[in-house]
Amino acid sequence: MAIAINRKANFSDKLTTAIQKKNCCVVVGLDPHFDLIPESIKQQFSKLQDDAFKYAANVILEFNKQVIDTLEHLVGIVKLQIAFYELYGWQGIWSYAETIHYAKQKGLIVIGDVKRGDVPNTAAAYANAHIGQVSINNTTQIAFQSDAITVNPLLGVDSILPFIKNAETYDKGIFVLAKTSNPSSVEFQDLLCGTKKLHQIIAEKIHTWGSRSIGTYGYSAIGAVVGATYPEDILILRKTMPNAYLLIPGYGSQGATAEDIKNCFNSDGYGAIINASRSILYAYNNRSWKDKYGAQTWKEAAQNAVMNMKEDLNKCVPAQTR
Amino acid sequence: MAIAINRKANFSDKLTTAIQKKNCCVVVGLDPHFDLIPESIKQQFSKLQDDAFKYAANVILEFNKQVIDTLEHLVGIVKLQIAFYELYGWQGIWSYAETIHYAKQKGLIVIGDVKRGDVPNTAAAYANAHIGQVSINNTTQIAFQSDAITVNPLLGVDSILPFIKNAETYDKGIFVLAKTSNPSSVEFQDLLCGTKKLHQIIAEKIHTWGSRSIGTYGYSAIGAVVGATYPEDILILRKTMPNAYLLIPGYGSQGATAEDIKNCFNSDGYGAIINASRSILYAYNNRSWKDKYGAQTWKEAAQNAVMNMKEDLNKCVPAQTR
Repeated sequence: MAIAINRKANFSDKLTTAIQKKNCCVVVGLDPHFDLIPESIKQQFSKLQDDAFKYAANVILEFNKQVIDTLEHLVGIVKLQIAFYELYGWQGIWSYAETIHYAKQKGLIVIGDVKRGDVPNTAAAYANAHIGQVSINNTTQIAFQSDAITVNPLLGVDSILPFIKNAETYDKGIFVLAKTSNPSSVEFQDLLCGTKKLHQIIAEKIHTWGSRSIGTYGYSAIGAVVGATYPEDILILRKTMPNAYLLIPGYGSQGATAEDIKNCFNSDGYGAIINASRSILYAYNNRSWKDKYGAQTWKEAAQNAVMNMKEDLNKCVPAQTR
Repeated sequence: MAIAINRKANFSDKLTTAIQKKNCCVVVGLDPHFDLIPESIKQQFSKLQDDAFKYAANVILEFNKQVIDTLEHLVGIVKLQIAFYELYGWQGIWSYAETIHYAKQKGLIVIGDVKRGDVPNTAAAYANAHIGQVSINNTTQIAFQSDAITVNPLLGVDSILPFIKNAETYDKGIFVLAKTSNPSSVEFQDLLCGTKKLHQIIAEKIHTWGSRSIGTYGYSAIGAVVGATYPEDILILRKTMPNAYLLIPGYGSQGATAEDIKNCFNSDGYGAIINASRSILYAYNNRSWKDKYGAQTWKEAAQNAVMNMKEDLNKCVPAQTR
């Protein structure tokens, strides 16, 4: 779609403003799990069933729109894990793009969880696709309207620079993987390179890479992904990257608690955003809530899940100083 | 699209057979660069220009089909860099899927260069998208028909297992990044972890991960990506992963020569496939050939580029023993 770029602010400032406005650092992960989407939504598109991907893509988009409508008064940030859209082919990517478009219309900050990373020339194509634009016969087009994406740093700085360049040019952001939330993240990310673990070295680079992109609130447009499941690493990584916004996955479904992530915030009460997906979207299906909610009351369940999470986090987030 | 899976052989056997059949270890990289696609193809779709992405996607698909038709008698393997398709949004991904479908119809082996990598649950979605299948309301669907994909190992073994599982289940393959071809690959991949470089440790793991998936010719369905631009590393990595097919980028446009990659082959004359993209697809635009070819003779130029590359490689590839 051809859209004029509205230059407003450093991405980190937009993020801080979004957190302030909703008084909430929760990121809702729009990760569609087809089997868990309520039947009432599927029935709306039953006529499309002969084209299974078209059917799935339409169901997913409608579910996402209803999730956004249900939660937009509570949260300011959503994250889309693109793998759960690629699963449905190009039609799935259509629903990914349309969901981003809808979320942007509602004024939400949108993070594309794409974890892309490639050689410079190819990284530039990814950067232009997800946080930039492309020229086709003298027209300027935007493939995906995401405000920020996640990127994988394994290929080194020349693979990251195209993303940083686009972040600067278009007021977008990136979150570079520092320490991921999965059990096997210890395998390579925790290898000792001299006296430091690999993820520590990557974090130092992220801090350096972000030093040119600091916004009004002191945060950089170059953030980092740090798993909630490694509280001791969070403590060190927070200090290594004082200006980075940390995108924290692993709360809820992956087992991490508010206590685990208390150290991801700076003393100003900012600097971290906490993702949860399944535990919010499919809260109606949560074992402990099954008596209270069903598929008919999935929206109420999702709202309550966000409010509970917010309350849980508020126990450990330092008071915001702004 | 709903397609029955035709179970034939270990992916590495299919790869060896394809190399034998065309007597060629060249992989043609179908990486569309819109500005370099001949005008004659663009003119066929000029009526679509009001929808820029639809226009670009159709031009790219038609160009790819003509490239495949032009080169299929010379090469048995193509690789699609998905970044250059994502750049055109969901329509670009449509042309990615359709190109794969066309190449498969022509009997080519198709590698999706997607470099995906994520936490286990998400990695499984990527694996099902690119080298697997998905169930939607009791029907089985395939998003992308690629035979193999590239994957990023930074997240560790639990992020790789879903891909290995699908490789085993569906006779597909993966190429895990060991040492990439870009200059900054030294930054993290060459860090010393104890006495070994990180990429060496990753290579040892790739060897282990692939040990369960060995085909008739002694190669594994779990291969590795090793950049042509680091000949000294190739020498070591070849020995570390004796059963792995090495996918070698960096020949041609990135400056590596046949001499640089001679050590990526095993003594049986197999074990490596060499990618080239721009130097083949846009050979007509090559500075040294500009007097000989123009946009009108791009197909002849592409064929000659492949034949020259084959001749160049034959100087250094050991004679095939099978």
